[in-house]
Amino acid sequence: MVQTCQDCVMSNPPPLPTKDRLIRAAAELFRSRGYNGVGVSEVLSRAKAPKGSLYHHFPNGKSDLALAASTWASDGMLRLIAASFEPAECFDDGVVTLCHKLAKFFDSKDMWGGCPITSTLFEGPATEDFRAHARYLVDGWIAEVEHHARRLGVPANQAAATAEHLYMLVQGGWQLAKARQQSDVLRHLPAQLNTDRRQ
Amino acid sequence: MVQTCQDCVMSNPPPLPTKDRLIRAAAELFRSRGYNGVGVSEVLSRAKAPKGSLYHHFPNGKSDLALAASTWASDGMLRLIAASFEPAECFDDGVVTLCHKLAKFFDSKDMWGGCPITSTLFEGPATEDFRAHARYLVDGWIAEVEHHARRLGVPANQAAATAEHLYMLVQGGWQLAKARQQSDVLRHLPAQLNTDRRQ
Repeated sequence: MVQTCQDCVMSNPPPLPTKDRLIRAAAELFRSRGYNGVGVSEVLSRAKAPKGSLYHHFPNGKSDLALAASTWASDGMLRLIAASFEPAECFDDGVVTLCHKLAKFFDSKDMWGGCPITSTLFEGPATEDFRAHARYLVDGWIAEVEHHARRLGVPANQAAATAEHLYMLVQGGWQLAKARQQSDVLRHLPAQLNTDRRQ
Repeated sequence: MVQTCQDCVMSNPPPLPTKDRLIRAAAELFRSRGYNGVGVSEVLSRAKAPKGSLYHHFPNGKSDLALAASTWASDGMLRLIAASFEPAECFDDGVVTLCHKLAKFFDSKDMWGGCPITSTLFEGPATEDFRAHARYLVDGWIAEVEHHARRLGVPANQAAATAEHLYMLVQGGWQLAKARQQSDVLRHLPAQLNTDRRQ
């Protein structure tokens, strides 16, 4: 009987399938330079994927890849929202955790990347597919925050507006943090949201 | 004596100099598709400018043009801020006017354009020149709003934070308006800022 060593498997995880590598490489590149700033050959090279693989997995090429990459990146944001609000004892605590996690992410990257949805879908070709998908993903983030707001006691008639306000503050705050190259802009966001909801 | 007809001059204004035509064409194109989505030849064609004129007026080519185009577009935003707050009787009225003007602008365009600063400078090459210029322009907008906030009676210790909050709401609100293709998102921004300042 062949013995498997769990530690070895953990330290040497099997390589991701080509399709996943393409999606992750594209998401990172689009986020940092926008849809129009990235060529297909660059995605293939970063993903260490053979040339024919792109159209095999994404028949419409770059635009299909952009839809998949933005969905993958958006799922990461949904997990960040869940990880911030699920252990929180109140909504305000969840907002503080989320903003601190975002600030940490901002510091860990090149501080010049953008929102994975807007960089990928807003700067790309203005097709109905891109527009509809952008709306679907943005509304998904807001719905997830609204769900936690209700669960954590924000009055039902304020939950949606609060979630939208947080979305706008995070988007605008990220732009200001980038312009000033200061992640503290993100850490200070909760105060602006909280005073608003304490009416 | 040759008579000049003022009406004729008004309806047939002299053409803009080449440099100004290049700047305006670049600003519009960068705003709608991002720095990386626009080629130099497209700017020349839209500006109806001869090929050699770009490097004559902008020795470093596209990147120089981006700095000039974002400054020109930013000046337009500064005029919009002034036109909103100068006739206002209180700061809140100025915010309402500004948000309504932005919503009107959003409706009058293709509803898919971006912020002239972030589309031009954040998506471009991540050089120090671009970063420093983005910060300079963004801080200019915030300083202009802060000036009017103080003039219109917002307490001195709240004026800067209020101006930053409005900047973030407008940036984030524009993204949400784009995602939903609804300019009303912008018209509803004042409520969120105002309740915040009434603490």
